[in-house]
Amino acid sequence: MSVLTLALAQSAFLVGDIAGNTQKIIEQSNAAREKGAQIIVFPELALTGYPPEDLLLRPSLTPRIHAALAQIAAIEGIVVVVGYPLNDTAHKKRFNSAGVFAHGAQRGVYHKQKLPNYSVFDEARYFDAGTDSVIFEISGRKVGLLICEDIWHRQPIKTLKDNGADLVLVLNASPFQIGKQELRRTLLSRRASENEIPLAYVNLVGAQDDLVFDGGSLAINADGQVAAEAGRFEAELLLVNFDLEQNTFVAQEALKPLPKVAEIYQALVLAVSDYVNHSRFPGVIIGLSGGIDSALCLAIAVDALGADRVNAVMMPYRYTAAISMEDAEAQAQRLNVAYHVAEIHGIVDSFAQTLAPLFADAPIDATEENLQARARGTVLMALSNKFGQLVLTTGNKSEMSVGYATLYGDMAGGFDVLKDVYKTQVYELAKFRNSLEETPVIPERVITRPPSAELRPEQTDQDSLPPYDVLDAILYGYIERDMSLDALVGQGFDQATVQHVIHLVDRNEHKRKQSALGPRISGRAFSRERRYPLVNGWTAGE
Amino acid sequence: MSVLTLALAQSAFLVGDIAGNTQKIIEQSNAAREKGAQIIVFPELALTGYPPEDLLLRPSLTPRIHAALAQIAAIEGIVVVVGYPLNDTAHKKRFNSAGVFAHGAQRGVYHKQKLPNYSVFDEARYFDAGTDSVIFEISGRKVGLLICEDIWHRQPIKTLKDNGADLVLVLNASPFQIGKQELRRTLLSRRASENEIPLAYVNLVGAQDDLVFDGGSLAINADGQVAAEAGRFEAELLLVNFDLEQNTFVAQEALKPLPKVAEIYQALVLAVSDYVNHSRFPGVIIGLSGGIDSALCLAIAVDALGADRVNAVMMPYRYTAAISMEDAEAQAQRLNVAYHVAEIHGIVDSFAQTLAPLFADAPIDATEENLQARARGTVLMALSNKFGQLVLTTGNKSEMSVGYATLYGDMAGGFDVLKDVYKTQVYELAKFRNSLEETPVIPERVITRPPSAELRPEQTDQDSLPPYDVLDAILYGYIERDMSLDALVGQGFDQATVQHVIHLVDRNEHKRKQSALGPRISGRAFSRERRYPLVNGWTAGE
Repeated sequence: MSVLTLALAQSAFLVGDIAGNTQKIIEQSNAAREKGAQIIVFPELALTGYPPEDLLLRPSLTPRIHAALAQIAAIEGIVVVVGYPLNDTAHKKRFNSAGVFAHGAQRGVYHKQKLPNYSVFDEARYFDAGTDSVIFEISGRKVGLLICEDIWHRQPIKTLKDNGADLVLVLNASPFQIGKQELRRTLLSRRASENEIPLAYVNLVGAQDDLVFDGGSLAINADGQVAAEAGRFEAELLLVNFDLEQNTFVAQEALKPLPKVAEIYQALVLAVSDYVNHSRFPGVIIGLSGGIDSALCLAIAVDALGADRVNAVMMPYRYTAAISMEDAEAQAQRLNVAYHVAEIHGIVDSFAQTLAPLFADAPIDATEENLQARARGTVLMALSNKFGQLVLTTGNKSEMSVGYATLYGDMAGGFDVLKDVYKTQVYELAKFRNSLEETPVIPERVITRPPSAELRPEQTDQDSLPPYDVLDAILYGYIERDMSLDALVGQGFDQATVQHVIHLVDRNEHKRKQSALGPRISGRAFSRERRYPLVNGWTAGE
Repeated sequence: MSVLTLALAQSAFLVGDIAGNTQKIIEQSNAAREKGAQIIVFPELALTGYPPEDLLLRPSLTPRIHAALAQIAAIEGIVVVVGYPLNDTAHKKRFNSAGVFAHGAQRGVYHKQKLPNYSVFDEARYFDAGTDSVIFEISGRKVGLLICEDIWHRQPIKTLKDNGADLVLVLNASPFQIGKQELRRTLLSRRASENEIPLAYVNLVGAQDDLVFDGGSLAINADGQVAAEAGRFEAELLLVNFDLEQNTFVAQEALKPLPKVAEIYQALVLAVSDYVNHSRFPGVIIGLSGGIDSALCLAIAVDALGADRVNAVMMPYRYTAAISMEDAEAQAQRLNVAYHVAEIHGIVDSFAQTLAPLFADAPIDATEENLQARARGTVLMALSNKFGQLVLTTGNKSEMSVGYATLYGDMAGGFDVLKDVYKTQVYELAKFRNSLEETPVIPERVITRPPSAELRPEQTDQDSLPPYDVLDAILYGYIERDMSLDALVGQGFDQATVQHVIHLVDRNEHKRKQSALGPRISGRAFSRERRYPLVNGWTAGE
């Protein structure tokens, strides 16, 4: 049989590092050629990484891109398809483009037609939309190009088919969210079968700030069947053979889909690892409380970086239970990380003393709780400043939603591992991680005891919040489904509870505005995906 | 002469407060009618305020808008033109619209055609572009509608003229930046004269988060001459008479243009006042250092809120000079604000004691300086938590650019008054404020002594930074003009200095990501206007 071998380069490309990304493109092209591939396809905007944001506005970007393209054009013995930003200075336009390079020159260029400008995407800020289909020939077959959002619309692939394409290549920078690969498989199968055309879908892998790109590149035949699939959350040079007589990809062994909890866990591990390594931190520091959030973060950090790059610090105060001390130490021991104890009594007392004349007779309130949290945050930051390690914060999405966290206290740090993970998901992830080894890394008691911030005597989270299963369901409806108060009450939730939760979400936007980045795993994460005005007169209602 | 009286309602509209904004529209319409106006024009998106951001995505917005429009349609005896978001559910589109209401019903609607999606604007995230011109009749004259960005393009107003319009109304939410009113006058004069058509330009006033809307509404005749102008930075119901026979606005007395320094000062005062009042804080707390930044912030806060709502706290440590103590007290006295002193020796010592075993033999470095800043930040936040006042932070744009500030330390607080003000501008503003009264509110010595963070003995800012006039010029080129290293060196700056400054700007993005909002006064402010990836491999160069 006569075969075209394609290499789908599911690789990581660091944002802004055009020289480094170019080297990677050259190396992988050479490797693919040596493995017998005639064409290699890289992800969307591989040259700049994704999303490059305002780096696209720097005039000095254009000469860097030109230099890189000249190097790529010089790659020999393989056709290279690569995504890059194209500044069309003559027409004052900028495109999100895919170039085709072969035999020492650029042979074609396609401009993305559908620019996403919703959710985490701001492509209309940077790009003009292309208007033309592009088809090039290889081994006597007509190959069409599409970029990411294009394939989520019906028209672009239909036009390629109408224009005679035999095969479609889709370059992507498609960020992870729970269930996203399932969604991609369904969508791509439909597009392939409704147009009776095979397609190869190449996705980026690696994390960039709050976004996680999970790979999962796919080759899909004209009948909608998956012929080949790359792994998730890891780089892979996937070679697929395209039978030129049958116009089909030769099927490979199918991959098992990842369970949702495993998907989330791997996304968090990749996010931590890429954030820390790309920012060149030698390691991380985590404040352990003895509770489940910091315990889970510790496990994720160890899986991401190795135990020798993770430091745990327990900072007890008079409300810290003895079992919290025991459990924190047990966590650190089981994961084999450096463990330190720093009591904060003296610090909190010195604040109280300094503040006493200013507070006069004002009654005790949350201020005193915040002082404990800020004493701890400052200790962690001092260690970070002294030894150069990044502080990982451990606030989960439920807490970030309702403001159950102290600015400059437990919120102090560079990366919030669980920022988009609801508390109920924290429990699932802890159980999942424990299921991977015979000896659970998170002590059972940490999972079963009632959660508490331990900022006053006998405190539990449920003193001031509804049970987490109720809270998380309301938060999901309000934040991710944009449901109104009335709609949530219509779902059976107690009116006063819903009102209270919505009020807390709305009034804590100022905390989230100053919060650390954290990996997005949901369909509506905070920060770039949910843009609310701080000052506003909106009130919950119909 | 036969006259049409227009009321240009240069008003403030609180984001999200649809019910409150509707009441204001009704009251002002009635007031305008009583003053003899036949038509009143409100700003862009007056019903929701600007920018409403993701509130536009809430399904419950639509019924609220419908209820508001029904109330507005019921206004009697005056034609009302008002901006609002229109959800066209049948076609799954959302428009940034202007409605014309008269005699108990809506008589017309125009959809903005040019949607800005650059700088601080994200309108493509929310809106579809309109395609049609709209002209309505009043007093036998044909009146065309445009919205903000439309007028910055040549075509929309030309189409209105071609379609027979006699007069154009432009609804705006045009944010302030230095020199913006001059720019508007020039642009609007050109548009009017090149199309030989008079236009009335109504702008929003008031601050929303980091944006300041400065009013300055204008009536411009077909020859490009300004016939009437509303004041800046304050609400005004500007009545203008339109001579129906001459097709010209009747000229009013001209306003003096504001000097740039006055413009900036007023923008900052308005920003603080609206942020604090709309967020319903009883007052503010400012940490005074004896230096010029906090002194200027204190004056701005007093001008914005009144002395009785402003509290100053001096928090000396062993590196605080005696003259800093004297000057801080003098500032507070001259402005007549409550003044407290809280020494932080005990707090810093207790941190040092707790950290000593963890630091072991590590040498003294910036960590110890950050501890002082964080002790102060925590004291201010404790006062804020206890008494409910907002902490104003005082970091200027030069400091924010190069990271000359401590996260969770002097950066702790809800609103950063000088965030977009370079240090050289801080001096100009201080002198300007002093020039307004016989006794200067900022002691002369504060302006003349060399700036210092006073975090170690004999420290001055110029130990680690180039002189501020050089630093600010480099920052302006790099941040606001996107100039490259080579281009800046080409302007005559020392290569090593430029390289150092660019390096500092690039590596401190993580601090700015967690920084407080502050009012935008420049052509490129941090936060929503400058979107850089935290993790990135971009390096300064050509």
